[in-house]
Amino acid sequence: MSRGFASDNNAGVHPEILKSIEQANTGHVVGYGDDPVTREAIGLFKKEFGTETDVYFVFNGTGANVLALSTVTHSFHSIICADTAHIEVDECGAPEKFTGCKLLPVPSEKGKITPAGIQKYLHGFDFEHHSQPKVISISQVTELGTVYSVEEIKAIAALAHRHNMLLHMDGARIANAAVALGLPFKAFTKDAGVDLLSFGGTKNGMLMGEAVVFFNPGLTANTKYIRKQSMQLFSKMRFVGAQFLAYFKNDLWKTNASHANKMAKLLEKEVLKTGKVKLTQKTEANGVFALLPKEVIPKLQEKYFFYVWNESTSEVRWMTSFDTTEEDIYGFVRLIDKLI
Amino acid sequence: MSRGFASDNNAGVHPEILKSIEQANTGHVVGYGDDPVTREAIGLFKKEFGTETDVYFVFNGTGANVLALSTVTHSFHSIICADTAHIEVDECGAPEKFTGCKLLPVPSEKGKITPAGIQKYLHGFDFEHHSQPKVISISQVTELGTVYSVEEIKAIAALAHRHNMLLHMDGARIANAAVALGLPFKAFTKDAGVDLLSFGGTKNGMLMGEAVVFFNPGLTANTKYIRKQSMQLFSKMRFVGAQFLAYFKNDLWKTNASHANKMAKLLEKEVLKTGKVKLTQKTEANGVFALLPKEVIPKLQEKYFFYVWNESTSEVRWMTSFDTTEEDIYGFVRLIDKLI
Amino acid sequence: MSRGFASDNNAGVHPEILKSIEQANTGHVVGYGDDPVTREAIGLFKKEFGTETDVYFVFNGTGANVLALSTVTHSFHSIICADTAHIEVDECGAPEKFTGCKLLPVPSEKGKITPAGIQKYLHGFDFEHHSQPKVISISQVTELGTVYSVEEIKAIAALAHRHNMLLHMDGARIANAAVALGLPFKAFTKDAGVDLLSFGGTKNGMLMGEAVVFFNPGLTANTKYIRKQSMQLFSKMRFVGAQFLAYFKNDLWKTNASHANKMAKLLEKEVLKTGKVKLTQKTEANGVFALLPKEVIPKLQEKYFFYVWNESTSEVRWMTSFDTTEEDIYGFVRLIDKLI
Amino acid sequence: MSRGFASDNNAGVHPEILKSIEQANTGHVVGYGDDPVTREAIGLFKKEFGTETDVYFVFNGTGANVLALSTVTHSFHSIICADTAHIEVDECGAPEKFTGCKLLPVPSEKGKITPAGIQKYLHGFDFEHHSQPKVISISQVTELGTVYSVEEIKAIAALAHRHNMLLHMDGARIANAAVALGLPFKAFTKDAGVDLLSFGGTKNGMLMGEAVVFFNPGLTANTKYIRKQSMQLFSKMRFVGAQFLAYFKNDLWKTNASHANKMAKLLEKEVLKTGKVKLTQKTEANGVFALLPKEVIPKLQEKYFFYVWNESTSEVRWMTSFDTTEEDIYGFVRLIDKLI
Repeated sequence: MSRGFASDNNAGVHPEILKSIEQANTGHVVGYGDDPVTREAIGLFKKEFGTETDVYFVFNGTGANVLALSTVTHSFHSIICADTAHIEVDECGAPEKFTGCKLLPVPSEKGKITPAGIQKYLHGFDFEHHSQPKVISISQVTELGTVYSVEEIKAIAALAHRHNMLLHMDGARIANAAVALGLPFKAFTKDAGVDLLSFGGTKNGMLMGEAVVFFNPGLTANTKYIRKQSMQLFSKMRFVGAQFLAYFKNDLWKTNASHANKMAKLLEKEVLKTGKVKLTQKTEANGVFALLPKEVIPKLQEKYFFYVWNESTSEVRWMTSFDTTEEDIYGFVRLIDKLI
Repeated sequence: MSRGFASDNNAGVHPEILKSIEQANTGHVVGYGDDPVTREAIGLFKKEFGTETDVYFVFNGTGANVLALSTVTHSFHSIICADTAHIEVDECGAPEKFTGCKLLPVPSEKGKITPAGIQKYLHGFDFEHHSQPKVISISQVTELGTVYSVEEIKAIAALAHRHNMLLHMDGARIANAAVALGLPFKAFTKDAGVDLLSFGGTKNGMLMGEAVVFFNPGLTANTKYIRKQSMQLFSKMRFVGAQFLAYFKNDLWKTNASHANKMAKLLEKEVLKTGKVKLTQKTEANGVFALLPKEVIPKLQEKYFFYVWNESTSEVRWMTSFDTTEEDIYGFVRLIDKLI
Repeated sequence: MSRGFASDNNAGVHPEILKSIEQANTGHVVGYGDDPVTREAIGLFKKEFGTETDVYFVFNGTGANVLALSTVTHSFHSIICADTAHIEVDECGAPEKFTGCKLLPVPSEKGKITPAGIQKYLHGFDFEHHSQPKVISISQVTELGTVYSVEEIKAIAALAHRHNMLLHMDGARIANAAVALGLPFKAFTKDAGVDLLSFGGTKNGMLMGEAVVFFNPGLTANTKYIRKQSMQLFSKMRFVGAQFLAYFKNDLWKTNASHANKMAKLLEKEVLKTGKVKLTQKTEANGVFALLPKEVIPKLQEKYFFYVWNESTSEVRWMTSFDTTEEDIYGFVRLIDKLI
Repeated sequence: MSRGFASDNNAGVHPEILKSIEQANTGHVVGYGDDPVTREAIGLFKKEFGTETDVYFVFNGTGANVLALSTVTHSFHSIICADTAHIEVDECGAPEKFTGCKLLPVPSEKGKITPAGIQKYLHGFDFEHHSQPKVISISQVTELGTVYSVEEIKAIAALAHRHNMLLHMDGARIANAAVALGLPFKAFTKDAGVDLLSFGGTKNGMLMGEAVVFFNPGLTANTKYIRKQSMQLFSKMRFVGAQFLAYFKNDLWKTNASHANKMAKLLEKEVLKTGKVKLTQKTEANGVFALLPKEVIPKLQEKYFFYVWNESTSEVRWMTSFDTTEEDIYGFVRLIDKLI
């Protein structure tokens, strides 16, 4: 199948990642994470985020979000997020099922929520009839391809902490955010007040595997049990560790994410040049959102697969990835130009 | 680390499995299972078990068991299993947490349960105060390395079906069982009355990935949602599919499991020769259980890692795997002989 | 404590209800509902709603809602309701915890939701990443004291049924709604397309006890187990049945609710006469919502207790009940008049 | 229906209890427990158990057990109890569903468990694959009518505390135990090392309502939220409080339980006199267990209803209650004598 723009997880695995898996494939090691490769990989996270960091590897993004949220909540808590958040609309209710918590979707703008929008959900504290607000969760990059600035994150973190709440970041595309902001991971997570982070790799060239990163080690007394009980404990865990070794080595994550972001910018530029397509979101990372004439969509999808984001408005989403080529972009835009 | 006998999941990945992952790593495919590789792999399962079979890939064994059990239960049901079952003692309560069901551990003999033992839990039907018995779950190979015969399975299946219950098999080591029985998978699963099966690969040379196999397609209307909600839906699913392609090709599963079982038999033979060690279970698959003098254990573990199964009796478990060598066995037994 | 306007559940028990409890207090009967009093009470419901009706008594309103919703959902479903719904804001997450479902709060107007507002949540059917919409829940009377017309209910029911969804009504104040509409219960529930109903009595003069009423008996195969597992099965159930006997006898429910509604109308009239208070909702049942000067509230509450509905706007809620007297109203309004 | 021996909850309500409900039925009070009657009732518990006691009223026994257990567990914990325990066999899985925990049923003798029997389940601490043992739960009176001595309780408490576990007592029939032991409640609960207690009243003459009593106030920071989320928060809570006022006044609980226990002893004596019936358990409280010829049971049940405890052995259970009369006993035994 030719490369399309459906999702960055339709891409395969970066060759360096696969090579690192192969290199880790020697002899026996203790399972479930007590092995040298996993330890080395955790060390790389500590280097990135500080030694006070606790890191737990899991299988996938939903697992990462659920493990993060379960670790810091009781079932009578509520979790505040954007109405467009992956945890709200794209995880089939896994957070509710596993945490028992209420999710409170805040109306978002360009995928983002703000202290003003969140504020109206911060009430009923100590009132036993009301789910107790405990976590604010933001996605970075957002599901609409936008990126929170450090200041925006700090403002939300301050609001959370004023109410004894915690700030979670769903970083399924955190590498694309880091590149977009031109900042190290730590600057817009831990240093901006984020308390717990789902750190994704799969959408940026890994085979599978995500990390849940806690910046306050006091939080994680129960995390290992929760990971097992939530079916996210990998027996041959070294093979996630090995991927992260390659991912951080020579900043592969940055190379991959920079390329994907650059391709999105190119796609934006080229498609705007046609004068026939209106974009609906700012292209800040590796997603481009556009309005297309309804009848054109299936014809385009035959050659380059992508998803309709909003059926009613005919808004589509195009994701670029680490292996998108300039030729993919030019070919795609030529076809758009021809079909409209 | 040198190869030990701790667990078959301490082994790495068979090279053919890794090669198949690499071969699947070309271009983009639709995520989450709607891709040609996954389809082909599912086809192999249907070839093995019949076209009426429904197959769902998941990340790990606990995920497989939970998906299987969740698909066929309501929270007011109970699940009957051996008191030594993985779902009872080794999944940190994942089945209870996710299904809401009660697990009823039946006293087992050599890891097995029998209709007579199960019978006493089959009461309270229609009585709303009592969790309603719905599933019997057996492990094949058992956690004590023993293997159910076809007749034993048929007897349990008949009991289950007489009470409108279903029979689940936890097949984390199903390949070792097939080899031990000298039978195709179907003969001691579907044909013996098993209704749902956790089909494992990780303990027999795969990187990760298991299959949940339903022999009655009418059961699975909700399974895809449950898989997603239970955090077991893999975005780059082709890479599980690819592993199963290699696993079934040239009967790699059989080669691997035969070797592991053969090594267990060799270990049994050699260790008995020393005249210094008593075995506690029949060696029917790839596990050997033995009583060791307490003081010898840590010294042995320094060179060959393994787990103590029962602290109070000093019973230890030795697992062989697809990559265990004869030299591993001889070296290990020499050390035992020397230390005792 | 003198009567205030805090809630209709701050009132006590109507004497006829207590008398009926006493009358049922003779000898032994089988527990848990298999007794003549409970059967007679269920018969009254069937008389009201038709013989095809299934009735389950529970302890309280949250229990009723959870039992109703649990009966018809799997954990991967979603439940659509008003953002002001009791199940969304006032049950501490009991619906999420017990059903595992996602609640989708629809922006409401005067406590009501409409097909247009609901429509935007009706997507993602068959898409395994998305919680599957299964139930629409409306409150009648709403939490803002307004009442859905039969036509409004029919329109929502039609929308639900077009999508193979069910319509649930939270009828904690259903008697006040029946009086407000001047209709029998059946006319705006079963006959309007409601599928399952939480039928409340506690807020209208009962001691405790609610009924979950299913209009499609095919739904309830599992309800008895769910009731027990959700801790809502009352051992001495005859004493809920006895209350409903009195409640339906001589239309006590109507007498009580008519009075409460009438008192609310009187309060509305009298408080508007002062010219000093603005009402924020239509007074359709037994609740009056008003804006008060912030500094006046605590002084008023000293004598007549009530709750602030919205701190930020200084909106207060006044509930009347079966035992509110005209003198309560006049005294209260005089005090308002004096304080402002 | 004439009085039988089916269950102490087939009895009605003691007149003093009903009278107290009536007396509390004056005017309005704040709902959900913030009222003078509830406060006074809680005060009586503190008088009984010490001022450091935290008390939460709930609707029923299953609710009490679930609230107690939920307060002190995470879902990855396990709860150890007798294989005959109400929480294991008679609550339709409510504890598993609501806590997410694993229940570990210990083989019991005469309804009791011992440190020796419990010990074998106390392993796997800190091992993330294993549900972490957290609570031991015992029933006092047991489900087989036997009563733990203070020494037996202390021994189990010591074992629990040595492992940083807590001891829960299901006191659905705690009054009968107190009478049997001739001790105040505190002597065999708090003073014997019990940490949390389900204190029942319904089986001893109350209408409904139980108390969850915590002897370590540090445990209850979350209890009020859990009570609401578990559907056990009663709006008109004064009417549970009022019952407990009457229950403790003039030691009504003791009068009731003494009578019930005395009637059981009388039944034991009289039935043994016939020389035709073998008893299977010691009659220590208000339950008598006997073997009857199978064919006699339905004939006896026509006149005096009771339950068969064990179908296979033809063991029956006869419960006496606060309103059992000597004539009931004599008439019942005469009929037994006649039928056998």
